[in-house]
Amino acid sequence: MSKKADGKGDDQGREVRSSRPLRADAQRNMDALLEAALAVFATSGVDAPVREIAAKAGVGVGTVYRRFPQRSDLIAAVFRHEVDACADAASVLAAEYAPDEALALWMQRYADFIATKRGLATALHSGNPAYNTLPTYFDQRLRPALQALLDAAASVGEVRTDIEPDDLLRAVASLCMSAHDDRTDYVRRMVALLVDGLRYTTNPSVNMPS
Amino acid sequence: MSKKADGKGDDQGREVRSSRPLRADAQRNMDALLEAALAVFATSGVDAPVREIAAKAGVGVGTVYRRFPQRSDLIAAVFRHEVDACADAASVLAAEYAPDEALALWMQRYADFIATKRGLATALHSGNPAYNTLPTYFDQRLRPALQALLDAAASVGEVRTDIEPDDLLRAVASLCMSAHDDRTDYVRRMVALLVDGLRYTTNPSVNMPS
Repeated sequence: MSKKADGKGDDQGREVRSSRPLRADAQRNMDALLEAALAVFATSGVDAPVREIAAKAGVGVGTVYRRFPQRSDLIAAVFRHEVDACADAASVLAAEYAPDEALALWMQRYADFIATKRGLATALHSGNPAYNTLPTYFDQRLRPALQALLDAAASVGEVRTDIEPDDLLRAVASLCMSAHDDRTDYVRRMVALLVDGLRYTTNPSVNMPS
Repeated sequence: MSKKADGKGDDQGREVRSSRPLRADAQRNMDALLEAALAVFATSGVDAPVREIAAKAGVGVGTVYRRFPQRSDLIAAVFRHEVDACADAASVLAAEYAPDEALALWMQRYADFIATKRGLATALHSGNPAYNTLPTYFDQRLRPALQALLDAAASVGEVRTDIEPDDLLRAVASLCMSAHDDRTDYVRRMVALLVDGLRYTTNPSVNMPS
């Protein structure tokens, strides 16, 4: 990646994938801005005033408008930033936990991300062309992240190999989308049950008809 | 049930739960009518002409109007009939299969029912007071049916005991509701994965962190 050629590296992979790479300090400001925007969107909606977002991020209003001339640019960037953070979490978890545990933790992390996405869903489904590439971005980042976790757990015999990442990504999204705000425990239980289902047939001593 | 007091019994539990029980022959006509209505609703929508439904059921149009003065009465009866058939399938499966297999088969049967329900969903969510009691009916019939299957499988150590039927009913409904028509295999795979998750922790030799 050309970004690393400046010798500053990146901030744990949390760079924004845009055509023009940012310096490390600019990247930190960008991260702060996108995280502030996400938090403000969650409490005040995606039409919240720019000055509220700028204040929370500790930057000037002009900085926000310069980086994101349109509201849709900011919303799309927040979404990509959340996708990146979720995808990048896979390798972090894989480095710290046993393969099936990393998989289980990441599935919950992904469910948390989908809960975030719910707040953006109305905007994302508005038909604005600024959002057209986001579903592809979502797939391209999250499918390989989950596939790597599945492969690692399967390679040590901890999970089965006959389930596709697309099915799991979709199933967890379905569980989250239908959940009411007061039932996050339900989502956690059902995501854990799916992961246990992945673990199940790896033990040949278990009797399993059909 | 007072219905059985007439000595004719019922048709494998597929009676319509209404205030006024039917004779066995009338019950068969009613079953045919409700099944015809379900099929016609699926192909022509819930506003399909009554004559089409009557013709398919082999009854007169007058019979349909006499039993169901309002369209909403017919839609509600079709829904209850499908709920009954799904609930009654639990004891049939329990008699024929091993407990965990009966559970697995019923979960797929329930998913098929939800796919049916999707066609009725717009009508059911229209706010018409004729449908107000249907969610309660759904819970009262399906929750104990699933609980009995879970209890039977747990009693022989085939499934875990820490998952509530309400969670499973809701999770399968979520998976079905988000499925496109061309992806029924996806639903079957994910429902099977949930059931395998129920089976998973019954084997203490399997390593399970968290």
